[in-house]
Amino acid sequence: MNAPADLMPRLDPRPVPPALIDALKARFGDRCSTARAVREQHGRDESPFDVPPPDIVVFAASTDEVAFTVALAQQHGVPVIPFGVGSSLEGHLLAVQGGVSIDLSRMDQVLRVNAEDLTVTVQAGVTRKQLNEAIRHEGLFFPIDPGADASIGGMAATRASGTNAVRYGTMRENVLGLTVVTASGEVVRTGTRARKSSAGYDLTRLFVGSEGTLGVMTEITLKLYPLPEAISAAVCHFPSVDAAVRTTIQVIQLGVPIARCELLDAHAVRAVNAHDRLGLREAPMLLMEFHGSAAGVQEQAQVVQDIAAEFGGEGFEWATTPEARTRLWTARHHAYLSALQTRPGCRAVTTDCCVPISRLAECIDATVAEVDASGLPYFIVGHVGDGNFHVGYLIDPAQPAERETAERLNRQLVARALQLEGTCTGEHGIGLHKMGFLLDEAGAGGVALMREIKRALDPRNIMNPGKIFEL
Amino acid sequence: MNAPADLMPRLDPRPVPPALIDALKARFGDRCSTARAVREQHGRDESPFDVPPPDIVVFAASTDEVAFTVALAQQHGVPVIPFGVGSSLEGHLLAVQGGVSIDLSRMDQVLRVNAEDLTVTVQAGVTRKQLNEAIRHEGLFFPIDPGADASIGGMAATRASGTNAVRYGTMRENVLGLTVVTASGEVVRTGTRARKSSAGYDLTRLFVGSEGTLGVMTEITLKLYPLPEAISAAVCHFPSVDAAVRTTIQVIQLGVPIARCELLDAHAVRAVNAHDRLGLREAPMLLMEFHGSAAGVQEQAQVVQDIAAEFGGEGFEWATTPEARTRLWTARHHAYLSALQTRPGCRAVTTDCCVPISRLAECIDATVAEVDASGLPYFIVGHVGDGNFHVGYLIDPAQPAERETAERLNRQLVARALQLEGTCTGEHGIGLHKMGFLLDEAGAGGVALMREIKRALDPRNIMNPGKIFEL
Repeated sequence: MNAPADLMPRLDPRPVPPALIDALKARFGDRCSTARAVREQHGRDESPFDVPPPDIVVFAASTDEVAFTVALAQQHGVPVIPFGVGSSLEGHLLAVQGGVSIDLSRMDQVLRVNAEDLTVTVQAGVTRKQLNEAIRHEGLFFPIDPGADASIGGMAATRASGTNAVRYGTMRENVLGLTVVTASGEVVRTGTRARKSSAGYDLTRLFVGSEGTLGVMTEITLKLYPLPEAISAAVCHFPSVDAAVRTTIQVIQLGVPIARCELLDAHAVRAVNAHDRLGLREAPMLLMEFHGSAAGVQEQAQVVQDIAAEFGGEGFEWATTPEARTRLWTARHHAYLSALQTRPGCRAVTTDCCVPISRLAECIDATVAEVDASGLPYFIVGHVGDGNFHVGYLIDPAQPAERETAERLNRQLVARALQLEGTCTGEHGIGLHKMGFLLDEAGAGGVALMREIKRALDPRNIMNPGKIFEL
Repeated sequence: MNAPADLMPRLDPRPVPPALIDALKARFGDRCSTARAVREQHGRDESPFDVPPPDIVVFAASTDEVAFTVALAQQHGVPVIPFGVGSSLEGHLLAVQGGVSIDLSRMDQVLRVNAEDLTVTVQAGVTRKQLNEAIRHEGLFFPIDPGADASIGGMAATRASGTNAVRYGTMRENVLGLTVVTASGEVVRTGTRARKSSAGYDLTRLFVGSEGTLGVMTEITLKLYPLPEAISAAVCHFPSVDAAVRTTIQVIQLGVPIARCELLDAHAVRAVNAHDRLGLREAPMLLMEFHGSAAGVQEQAQVVQDIAAEFGGEGFEWATTPEARTRLWTARHHAYLSALQTRPGCRAVTTDCCVPISRLAECIDATVAEVDASGLPYFIVGHVGDGNFHVGYLIDPAQPAERETAERLNRQLVARALQLEGTCTGEHGIGLHKMGFLLDEAGAGGVALMREIKRALDPRNIMNPGKIFEL
């Protein structure tokens, strides 16, 4: 087992020559800043790391402007770090080697909706909520929902997924094509609007999940889905996490096309009750959603209800109106925030393992036993239909020992997940935090291939350097 | 528009030193052959090219034997070409630079079925029919069906799909992980058995579709699906190809989860009637399949029947028993063979474009007009739910002018498909035949990235050289 990245990541700042700063200021004017507050805002994400900010921030408004910036950085050997909304969790956008943060939030145009083909092309700074607002009147939606209102570019860069992935897949399955600025500052288009292709190497999927280390995605073509004729949500309480997970396993194995299947443990339910006065029974809970025709949704729901009953599921509550569904999903969406509020001043260290579903119950059981023994407060939420779950350890930042305990528990959890043929990250990415885990998971040979690809496409190592693996 | 590869591909044979041959014979004994007949059998596929065979064929029985062979070839700078069953269509396995053909057909073990997780791990030489036989008793199936009983390794290498892709995706979506022998002869494992992961670069999808040019896949972990509770097939005849395609478009746009949606034009129907005495109406026809619960299947089918009626669809015929379904699907599966028999001695030049579904009708219409004007006999079959269709030009090999006409028509079709934002190959791959088309589609910048990756992972260019792009 390799150690994870140090709690303080390795810093290796490179000189940023005044000529680069001047050239950026000349091109971007007031869409370019070296002000400390602006830099600091672009130098942190939701990870627990605290490192110096980038040297300069540019607010790019077009692919050309990104290409200009990257070409200039290439010329000077200076890092570039793409920035969406800053909701990444593993230190992806931290300027560990200094350099230029390219803020893409002004690239916020939904460029083209092709309702007939169920495709859309957006600029990378469009957020998922903005996208769904823009396409709702066409009767379409984009299902990937990582919780945060992340930018589509950021979601593609981390291969995000979330609550709907069990039915609709992740960013891996839902990106059709990209416009990418490569390390040399060239603009390359990958993929087409065709649903499938066997035309050469799958560059699209190489960039998806590469966390900005191979290029900057500026435009993204996505698959869309017709809004279901009927949507129904349901909540069900279980005597144990194990019983909830076993219900899920059977639902998946039967091929029920469930659209969402989320677990909240009793700690998480307690937290959302306190936060939103939801009055939910404070026991492990599955929160489910069914999409389809009216009859199809009813049929799916009945099957799931029958399975849940076998495992002691009780208190089934249905929600078919948007308002009732919103109330139930509030519980899920506020879980993280609510849990933080149960321990004032705390912050969460969040795990992201994903295992084959047949191993999920044993993985969670063993994890719960360990965490309970540690005495750290925690909560568990999970996209259990995919075998993916998050433990949030609630630590007091003033007590380094708690952080260390959380990291130790995380190491134990990752070791267990890998041993169960799973992954150290279902949807958050590697960033700075999981570089050691990636070595354990992909092996030295796998990481060596990644390094070769990185060296080939970015020989001066300017694209978000210091992330995913050490070069 | 770049010209496609020459009708006679560039040959660039490399010397194969006797020491290499001797070392292979010492290791493989009688599972190694330099006999002309064996080499010739491994030196052709379903493509129209005729080039000299590989220098030697080894029948590998394990990942270790593949690794041994590749390491030896690396040492001598000699090409290695993986061989499954030889059903590729674009010259993928032709030994244009000589070398060692690694026949994987003896790697035919289904290593591990995980019914609870809906995954299976197979050796690369397992064929899709063999796989489905092996898992049927578990109530599971693997949906990807490219027509031929191809090896899973070959299907992964070409990113194959086929009739079920509209519902279940292609090899891109259905490979979870790989064991790969890289150009240095090292064994690397990519992916895990988890359904999703954000752990670093997506090496799995880089190898899938790389046509043996980056490594030899020896073991493949796949997603499986529960056999549907109910399956129903239907055939419907249309006044025109256009009407059949418009029906398909509307079905897809409504989000009906149709499992198969295949077009046969009147030429194809006539051919299968003659071949199998099926007595089908000789008009454009859609052949459809619905998977789900009994009620769900009926509901889907009713929606599709209603849509078809709007476009003049007639003679709906249902098949719910396996025998009745087999009769209908015989038409589709025999289309290629049957068409060849309508012109004794002919061979087919087959196209593989795929376009966004809203452009499918215009793409096929314009293509039909051009082919009709050319006077060449042809047929059209299509996975129209994906926007993918094949024109088979039936040419007399003794008349070079016919081959040239077919290639000209193919060039025109590809140019049209690209202009309609589609791809030159939905599922067959690039091989030798479409290298020029790939340049048109991916652009010089995209192909340059592919070349950089190839050079990084295979610096001596020994892995199936001369395919996908010129180095």
